[in-house]
Amino acid sequence: MIHIQPFKEKHWAATWQIIEPTFRAGETYVFSPEITATDAHRIWVEMPAATFVAVDGNNAVLGTYYIKPNQPALGSHVCNCGYIVAENARGKGIASEMCTHSQLEAIARGFRAMQYNLVVSTNKGAVRLWKRHGFKVIGTLPEAFRHPRLGFVDALVMYKQLET
Amino acid sequence: MIHIQPFKEKHWAATWQIIEPTFRAGETYVFSPEITATDAHRIWVEMPAATFVAVDGNNAVLGTYYIKPNQPALGSHVCNCGYIVAENARGKGIASEMCTHSQLEAIARGFRAMQYNLVVSTNKGAVRLWKRHGFKVIGTLPEAFRHPRLGFVDALVMYKQLET
Repeated sequence: MIHIQPFKEKHWAATWQIIEPTFRAGETYVFSPEITATDAHRIWVEMPAATFVAVDGNNAVLGTYYIKPNQPALGSHVCNCGYIVAENARGKGIASEMCTHSQLEAIARGFRAMQYNLVVSTNKGAVRLWKRHGFKVIGTLPEAFRHPRLGFVDALVMYKQLET
Repeated sequence: MIHIQPFKEKHWAATWQIIEPTFRAGETYVFSPEITATDAHRIWVEMPAATFVAVDGNNAVLGTYYIKPNQPALGSHVCNCGYIVAENARGKGIASEMCTHSQLEAIARGFRAMQYNLVVSTNKGAVRLWKRHGFKVIGTLPEAFRHPRLGFVDALVMYKQLET
């Protein structure tokens, strides 16, 4: 049983433990694989409008996501989210639960759409999951992501208009 | 005769005079129509990697553009630019000259592609011009821009791979 709740600073150590390996791997997010905990905290916790954690029955943090406006003022009705699930907790539907939660959160905050600016095309699981959640591939950015193993690979812009 | 040169602080008053009406109109950029000069300076001059001005033979500033990485580390080989021409100097090819200049500047700085994240679909002149410069419409973001007169309108993601 997963419970999704607002991030509190007490969750930071566990959250960093989840997001650090993902950033270090450099296969799905644009952030530097050498990012510091301080910079990651700024990006994941301080800059977004809100951050959430998915915890299990023992209060272990298994996933996290942030939500923020994707653009300033005249584009601020479209939000952007980022999701990361702990490596040892993948394949259990936690990303899907966070995606659903984020859409409801987005609607509650008055957003009219959600945009993923750069979904790495080789991240097939994510592309499939977002499609299942009703996101459309708006277009493909040729070689927009520098993959550490595969070199320059395409990235997708994905978008969903929310029921408001 | 237009000469495009690096922005210096002595150009700020003239640059602000050019970009202020565009931001106030709110029809082409996402920035708040109530933006302050301080915030505009931060966005146009401080945050980008570089800013340029297009000046005429009398050293009057007629246009300006910025260039910056569109994403952090693993996406930082794609740049983003913004261009504004003085209202009374439009239709003279200054935007086109700045676009050409920015592509050469991008290549010199090692960028492999240029991306415009949010070209307002009603800004037909800009869409036509970028297409003429080899930019492709990657996709259309439905109702991603809140236009002050027209309400929610579509925005285009445009992209060009540069000859490197």
